[in-house]
Amino acid sequence: MTGFVDRLRATQLMERAGIEALVLCAPEAFHYATGAWIGPAGLFRRAGAGFVVIPVRQELPIGVVVADFNAAQLQAALPDAVVRSHPIWIESTTLDASTSALAQRIEAGLASSGRPPDFSRPATFELANSVRELKQILAGFGLDHATIGVDLDFIAVTDFSVLQAMLPGCSMVDGSAVLDRLRAIKSQREIELLQQGIILSEAGLDRLQVDAMAGMRQADLISLYREGVATAAAGLSHPVATAEYVTLGARAKGADAKAMPGDPLKCDMVCTVGGYASDMSRNFIFGPPSAEQAELHAIAERAFADGLAALVPGNALGHVHRIASDSLARQGLRSYRRGHFGHGVGQSVFSEQWPFIAAGSDVVIETGMVLAFEIPLYIDGLASFNLEDQFLIMPDGPVAMNRLPRRLETIG
Amino acid sequence: MTGFVDRLRATQLMERAGIEALVLCAPEAFHYATGAWIGPAGLFRRAGAGFVVIPVRQELPIGVVVADFNAAQLQAALPDAVVRSHPIWIESTTLDASTSALAQRIEAGLASSGRPPDFSRPATFELANSVRELKQILAGFGLDHATIGVDLDFIAVTDFSVLQAMLPGCSMVDGSAVLDRLRAIKSQREIELLQQGIILSEAGLDRLQVDAMAGMRQADLISLYREGVATAAAGLSHPVATAEYVTLGARAKGADAKAMPGDPLKCDMVCTVGGYASDMSRNFIFGPPSAEQAELHAIAERAFADGLAALVPGNALGHVHRIASDSLARQGLRSYRRGHFGHGVGQSVFSEQWPFIAAGSDVVIETGMVLAFEIPLYIDGLASFNLEDQFLIMPDGPVAMNRLPRRLETIG
Repeated sequence: MTGFVDRLRATQLMERAGIEALVLCAPEAFHYATGAWIGPAGLFRRAGAGFVVIPVRQELPIGVVVADFNAAQLQAALPDAVVRSHPIWIESTTLDASTSALAQRIEAGLASSGRPPDFSRPATFELANSVRELKQILAGFGLDHATIGVDLDFIAVTDFSVLQAMLPGCSMVDGSAVLDRLRAIKSQREIELLQQGIILSEAGLDRLQVDAMAGMRQADLISLYREGVATAAAGLSHPVATAEYVTLGARAKGADAKAMPGDPLKCDMVCTVGGYASDMSRNFIFGPPSAEQAELHAIAERAFADGLAALVPGNALGHVHRIASDSLARQGLRSYRRGHFGHGVGQSVFSEQWPFIAAGSDVVIETGMVLAFEIPLYIDGLASFNLEDQFLIMPDGPVAMNRLPRRLETIG
Repeated sequence: MTGFVDRLRATQLMERAGIEALVLCAPEAFHYATGAWIGPAGLFRRAGAGFVVIPVRQELPIGVVVADFNAAQLQAALPDAVVRSHPIWIESTTLDASTSALAQRIEAGLASSGRPPDFSRPATFELANSVRELKQILAGFGLDHATIGVDLDFIAVTDFSVLQAMLPGCSMVDGSAVLDRLRAIKSQREIELLQQGIILSEAGLDRLQVDAMAGMRQADLISLYREGVATAAAGLSHPVATAEYVTLGARAKGADAKAMPGDPLKCDMVCTVGGYASDMSRNFIFGPPSAEQAELHAIAERAFADGLAALVPGNALGHVHRIASDSLARQGLRSYRRGHFGHGVGQSVFSEQWPFIAAGSDVVIETGMVLAFEIPLYIDGLASFNLEDQFLIMPDGPVAMNRLPRRLETIG
């Protein structure tokens, strides 16, 4: 089992939703369910590059439709899964071991694949080919007349009409909410990846804090962060990627402007390890802060501490939003209306994943969630600050994945 | 006019398709039509972060729905556009110029926005809020009972049902094909961005060719490329990003394995400048190639030259595919079935954009297209080579944007 799905929880959630299988095709959902990359066809972000079937019956394996290009690799990684493949645009073959001329050895390799002489490849990939394989898997699982939950928050309208036409026996309903709830509770491996991302991000910020100098451009500062991440990531087996949401200056400067004494620097950093995006933010000042900048950061620190005290199992996320809003109001910011003060983290197209710490959210905080909690205060003309940590929710409260102090740091 | 749309061509294509406006919401389509970033809400890749309305009547301006977070910036960049905004989760304000206490200055800034006391922000953004603004724009353009072409290859099923319910007067049809045809012919500014990407990519490959050494890992080789790109990009006003599709070794090695004498290295590099992704590929060998590796590359070079001779205005893309396939067959690779030998380039979610140089494609090559033409030969156990250049189609034939020779280069 190399995917990240807790089959028992999946079954419970599917039963509650009245569906007999989840059938997912978003690239991030595919990776979540299989632990494997959907392959190059997924780069188009259209339905059918691959599918994953998670049946409600736990004795059934996972079913996977994937490109012929990466089918063997996927089957090797998931020996128990039912894997079927569809051809994509990429041709490849293995050199035959004979001592013939080169072209003959290549032809022999192609012939050994056993494909028919009229075999051809589509321009990119064909959704219909992919759904044909999906249909075989569903039939094998006894699900060809089932109610299935598909990721209708991903599938484009034109693609869904193909699915409907080719799977007339199935009743297709929106499985997005089931997937959201399933992903919201993390396994040990997922927690480790999300912790690793924070460790790397903090190494990047350590590097930035040590080496940042007035006169550097925003891009130079981001390079320091990336170097720190890369150094800390050396030898790690998982792929690592970063995204930096940086604001430099009391009034946000252009990318080519240089850092000047007195400039605030917000570093809201996403570090993705093995598909899992961690999210955190710290704030710096080139030289000592002004009294108002220090005051603004102190307001964020106080609201952070107040909200964090409420980030415990059993509380609704809407309650945490109200506590943080009330804290800001008590400190004089009565009209500051933030949509959310944090969110889940994991594998999604963006680093912010359901659930959100938003007004009125009745989602209850549970043990095993990993939540980014944040107090962003963006005041044009003074500073854009965001104070953000990532927390693993444990039975007795949140455990910070971050180690950097939450204070405004002087750099340069 | 800072978008990339040729309004005259757009009108001709819409008239032919029987639609009265294009209404687009994919982030890349938004950038294509406005020249501006859709903003942070677009990172969720869901409908409604923004909309662009391109009416068939050229005397009408472009209509834009965008987040309040970046509405002012967008209106400043597009003074003639009709811009309406919807609230997203991000709160910000401008510090009031008074000398009051900090919280009062922030409150005064928020009060000056003129929003009602019960104003609140959604957890992320609300499609319904965004469609409400779209509806106002359509009404202002006299399009509230029109046939409109929307990007149904992007809009998720759940989102489309909201659009349908809120725009009952409109007949919504698939506008994807019109958008594809519109984007296929490039303007001078688009050509410059696509040329710039190739210049940067070749600078990156120059650097890699000079500094690559046996013993380096794949990640080290990619770093050399990125350094070369970054050095060449210094001072450029457009954002630059790269994606590297690299294969090291006769049999593809893991990311941590080191380059050894005799290893082939395929560098299929995407360099995105101002949203426009250029695509090219060159091949290297650590030390002299084996006779079979040299022969394989010579086959690719020959098929490339043969196919390129057919890449002229008036030919169908299917014809070019056949010429390239025939060339490979004449050289002994009769069963090698590639889905496409190239594609359009531009602003899309992936670097490969419609149209494709694919079997049976009746799309006719036109002046002003920019096409990546490629001969990928992936032979496990020998080498994965891809020879790929980007061409501007001119009336008298293709003009290469690349300057690097198409030969197999020795490195290390």
